[in-house]
Amino acid sequence: MKKILVIAAMAALAGCAQAPIALKDMGSFHVGGREVTISGKPVKEVTFTPGGVPAKVDPNGVYMVESMYVQYFVPQNEHGALPLLMWHGGGLTGVTYETTPDGREGWLNYFIKKGWTVYNSDAVERGRAGWAMYPDVFKGEPVFLTTENPFERFRIGAGPGSYSKDPAKMKLNPGSQFPVEGYDNFTKQNVPRWTTTDDAIIAAYIALVDKVCPCVVLVHSQAGQFGQKVAQARPDKVKALVLVEPAGLGDPKLVDKLKDTPILTVFGDFIEQDSRWPLIRANELKFLEQVRTAGGRYEVVNLPQIGIRGNSHMMMMDKNNLQVADVIQGWLEKQGLYK
Amino acid sequence: MKKILVIAAMAALAGCAQAPIALKDMGSFHVGGREVTISGKPVKEVTFTPGGVPAKVDPNGVYMVESMYVQYFVPQNEHGALPLLMWHGGGLTGVTYETTPDGREGWLNYFIKKGWTVYNSDAVERGRAGWAMYPDVFKGEPVFLTTENPFERFRIGAGPGSYSKDPAKMKLNPGSQFPVEGYDNFTKQNVPRWTTTDDAIIAAYIALVDKVCPCVVLVHSQAGQFGQKVAQARPDKVKALVLVEPAGLGDPKLVDKLKDTPILTVFGDFIEQDSRWPLIRANELKFLEQVRTAGGRYEVVNLPQIGIRGNSHMMMMDKNNLQVADVIQGWLEKQGLYK
Repeated sequence: MKKILVIAAMAALAGCAQAPIALKDMGSFHVGGREVTISGKPVKEVTFTPGGVPAKVDPNGVYMVESMYVQYFVPQNEHGALPLLMWHGGGLTGVTYETTPDGREGWLNYFIKKGWTVYNSDAVERGRAGWAMYPDVFKGEPVFLTTENPFERFRIGAGPGSYSKDPAKMKLNPGSQFPVEGYDNFTKQNVPRWTTTDDAIIAAYIALVDKVCPCVVLVHSQAGQFGQKVAQARPDKVKALVLVEPAGLGDPKLVDKLKDTPILTVFGDFIEQDSRWPLIRANELKFLEQVRTAGGRYEVVNLPQIGIRGNSHMMMMDKNNLQVADVIQGWLEKQGLYK
Repeated sequence: MKKILVIAAMAALAGCAQAPIALKDMGSFHVGGREVTISGKPVKEVTFTPGGVPAKVDPNGVYMVESMYVQYFVPQNEHGALPLLMWHGGGLTGVTYETTPDGREGWLNYFIKKGWTVYNSDAVERGRAGWAMYPDVFKGEPVFLTTENPFERFRIGAGPGSYSKDPAKMKLNPGSQFPVEGYDNFTKQNVPRWTTTDDAIIAAYIALVDKVCPCVVLVHSQAGQFGQKVAQARPDKVKALVLVEPAGLGDPKLVDKLKDTPILTVFGDFIEQDSRWPLIRANELKFLEQVRTAGGRYEVVNLPQIGIRGNSHMMMMDKNNLQVADVIQGWLEKQGLYK
């Protein structure tokens, strides 16, 4: 009888052990946003579906705008001491952290499997957050990126003129870890962006932090600014910051607000030969020195200096993306944020 | 020794059994789309982040447009005989099937827990699929919906004038199952829509079907048209169709293409007193009769006729959403699509 029990239990257990992603819960919500009233526009008759029944659509009235979308995953066995919030860069969405463009696992799966509760989001203006009328609500025009733009600007290729539709003719940075065979898929992840919506984006991120934190916030690129500013606005709630190639700074007047928030900053390869990244990095390092002077602490990892070479700006998609994730995981463990 | 093993195994097993969502894999991808070339526009200098380093953005060039986004979940223990694709309605995204606006589990979790591999997507033009320049690529202006529009058009309230910001003054359809306490959250899920992109949407859905099917396709509202037309284009790959309040039809000239695809159509409550839904339903039923004449078979469930009352157009969010899901699950089982 005992033997049968053992066998049955062990067999069931083996089945259990095979589930690489065991979740207590998963779901999504929108957070933040505000109502605006639009007036003075003509009523339209809209047939939404060919052959459908026309509906009157009065564009005047109240709109909900500038909220953001968040998808969450709670692992069955939690090891993160706090939830981990992952904020994507400009012109992108939470897709950044999902499967890589060549079909490997991204950082979302990595951190969930490590036992972190993860909140992966689409900031205001993009993805499932939706976007608002312009110029009525959002000011100015959105920016669309051509297929070659990220290739040349994200240090996948060696600067302007390096992109070619023909993979054999692409001028990759030497030793590039970006999975170029998935580059077309990556361009599909790009969404239109505005350069006038930062305040709305920050307001929604603060609403998110107020809802689900204390937490660790991991940001990329454009969200460097957002992560640091939101941590300055909610120093009691953002318990650690991971800045992955931050393209913007916190508020230099409020550096003391970051004195109790340990910061890890990670930069990839090919920075020195780029036209913009040396200055972007220098600005961030100068800001972090001000934080240190105010009593804070930070660590900078330039990946090539620890022997991890070839990383583009999109290091969460690079072929060695899980090796880079290991660096972040190790730092989080050192901060006592992993149990 | 055996006893210890039993206890250890049973304890581990108990931990295992508590994981309500056990996944073999999850991830996302984009599919479909095409390249377009834009020319004749001025080069811009864009500072993406305040205080950042300006970058030249040349809007002329090649763009990847009209692809779609898909997130997939593969359960540890599969019981669906085929993958289940869930396609949302107009002005919405895959968020439709996730957590309900008042925080309960949606159909995505329901079907994953039942053991279906689910592909939940954002169609061309919305959500994580992104959208293209207009009028250059998409023709015409996008339509934005005011906060009261879906309330009055989706049979949550009793038609025009039924919405109020004050929940106490909302004129709900009597016995409405819509979770009005989450109505503001629902309006945040709305995204801009075009009425000129149907062909692009269908092309991307066909690319998705070619990639992951044979399958079952479950559609809502606007996607009624897409599901039926894509099944007509790929009759060998769409093995069953679930039409949840379809707002548009398949191609009447190709009804014979649906003769081997069993169809379930589900309608909610309050249809008779609505200004548009009696005709929308009548058109669909007429189309389905043509399918039957061509040798096909379908089943129509008007929920009130089987004692399920109060459902709005957004029945996957209604308070009895899992009861409605049970109806669909039961039909799929009857078709031999569940193992």
